[in-house]
Amino acid sequence: MNIVITGGAGFLGARLARQLLEQGKLSLAGAPPQTIKTVTLVDRVAPPAALTADPRVRAVVGDLNQLLESSGEGTQVVRADDALVFHLAAAVSGECEADFDLGMRSNVDATRALLQACRALGTSPTVVFASSLAVFGNSAAQPLPPVIDDRTLPTPQNSYGIQKFIGEQLVADYARKGFIRGRNVRLMTVSVRPGKPNGAASSFLSGMIREPLAGLRAACPVAPETEVALSSPARTIEGLIRAAEAGDAGWGARTAINLPALKTTVGEMAAALARVAGKEVAALIDWTPDPAIANIVTSWPATIDAARARALGLSPDEDFDSIIAAYLGENPRTRPSAATQ
Amino acid sequence: MNIVITGGAGFLGARLARQLLEQGKLSLAGAPPQTIKTVTLVDRVAPPAALTADPRVRAVVGDLNQLLESSGEGTQVVRADDALVFHLAAAVSGECEADFDLGMRSNVDATRALLQACRALGTSPTVVFASSLAVFGNSAAQPLPPVIDDRTLPTPQNSYGIQKFIGEQLVADYARKGFIRGRNVRLMTVSVRPGKPNGAASSFLSGMIREPLAGLRAACPVAPETEVALSSPARTIEGLIRAAEAGDAGWGARTAINLPALKTTVGEMAAALARVAGKEVAALIDWTPDPAIANIVTSWPATIDAARARALGLSPDEDFDSIIAAYLGENPRTRPSAATQ
Repeated sequence: MNIVITGGAGFLGARLARQLLEQGKLSLAGAPPQTIKTVTLVDRVAPPAALTADPRVRAVVGDLNQLLESSGEGTQVVRADDALVFHLAAAVSGECEADFDLGMRSNVDATRALLQACRALGTSPTVVFASSLAVFGNSAAQPLPPVIDDRTLPTPQNSYGIQKFIGEQLVADYARKGFIRGRNVRLMTVSVRPGKPNGAASSFLSGMIREPLAGLRAACPVAPETEVALSSPARTIEGLIRAAEAGDAGWGARTAINLPALKTTVGEMAAALARVAGKEVAALIDWTPDPAIANIVTSWPATIDAARARALGLSPDEDFDSIIAAYLGENPRTRPSAATQ
Repeated sequence: MNIVITGGAGFLGARLARQLLEQGKLSLAGAPPQTIKTVTLVDRVAPPAALTADPRVRAVVGDLNQLLESSGEGTQVVRADDALVFHLAAAVSGECEADFDLGMRSNVDATRALLQACRALGTSPTVVFASSLAVFGNSAAQPLPPVIDDRTLPTPQNSYGIQKFIGEQLVADYARKGFIRGRNVRLMTVSVRPGKPNGAASSFLSGMIREPLAGLRAACPVAPETEVALSSPARTIEGLIRAAEAGDAGWGARTAINLPALKTTVGEMAAALARVAGKEVAALIDWTPDPAIANIVTSWPATIDAARARALGLSPDEDFDSIIAAYLGENPRTRPSAATQ
């Protein structure tokens, strides 16, 4: 089996690739397990060297829209024998709000072009589309219901959410037409992400843990009582792979499923950080309000009834303490030094 | 005030134009009534001569996508002083199902290009987007709830419905960004339409009344017990104009409102025809099943709770008998001759 991951050099994409290469096999859409022959990582930057060292990894480096518009040999995003595409590449929420046209191009046009490329294969490959919790937005004119389930009407309050929701519609109709096998999956806010802050409005939900653990101060732009719906990187990757494995009947409707989420508050996250790493570490969080970020993040819901995901055997993280502990286990060099404790 | 109607030479567009020209004034988005100076009708064909005879009418003839891509003087779709755009132009449901790419171009690309043209004005014109009941689709994997309301999750089961739903998302986000003032309105199935059959799967819901009234046989491709949600042309136009008149607070959320619908069955429609025009006329209906059409039409819901429309003062037609009577009043030459009675 040949697999493509767009956004394959990003944190989630690279982690997904590592997981797939490690397990070596995959049951695609309910079929018996097949050996994974190649994993193509498409991104604007080259994937980590540890990944490209694997002979099964093929890297396609470039702007996704441009790659899909061109048709050169080594720049092909999907090829005739690709059976599974994880579409993770996207402009993030903060970027899309700052630059509307960039978001439309990166999230709507690229998704459509990718689906056209899959359709052109004529083999109806499986496409797992990473949508987002951000399709749900609270507003005074249309308050969110207390619990979000798989049939809640999305009312996005930012361009990223609108663009992801449009992507879901495209995936659903390409699937209905038989051009692809579609799997719309809404990711929760992933925390703790390693690495550096990005342009996502939710970036601080990793940064406020990651930076203090590395001895650095970090800003939290929302109030401690702000509720959030989180998923660890491991649970998120599990959800994406499960979507690829699910057969059509088990998957059900072509509309998106919400992945399970741990509901917590930003204040509880800081308290968990104090419990796991010490009060001195948690004291490195600066509670500095930022209305632009708060407006986006507080419009997202926190209480998710992920019934379809549950039926697929998926469950949320147990608590945020264990998420921090897992992060420290996976990123040992970021463990706080004695100096900061 | 200057108004643009895309699809302005079509049945609904021309009727909307006549209504606006007749009333001569309009309260746009809650503002005091203003005199209507021009009505621009954009369509692939020229509008009816009776309309172009009015000095306030300006006709722009051409393919909407091509017009929006070009920038010539007399071919401009929206101009600096246009305050209101009714976007009715669309490829219809049957066409979109037969030709996926045509539907994407006519319904998604044209809508986006029109919104971009409105945004480029920098004046935030009001855009009334004619969406459709077809965004709702029943399926085995995701049955529709017994009653559809304004917060029901659309699960389109045809490309037309998906494309209209994507249009709603675009209008909502362009409105949120302040590029336009947006009014997403879902039209019910309009019956009785005068004229000729078109490529809409719902075309027969007018034809099965119109053709027999003209002494012609007409096919009904679905079973008599098939439930449908209908609106007369007059009520439909009323809904579109009311959407333009509503102020932001009265309108509410940027998601679409469902217009009110008369719930009836195809069998009751035939019975109403017999009551209004005679049994001999109703006997001209041929009950000839067509699975392709039935698949689309029976996936649409019939029970609509149009709460937001009701709050705007809109109500459904009282019964189908009165819809037929109104049609005969408006189209006197189609009244059945003695020979067919």
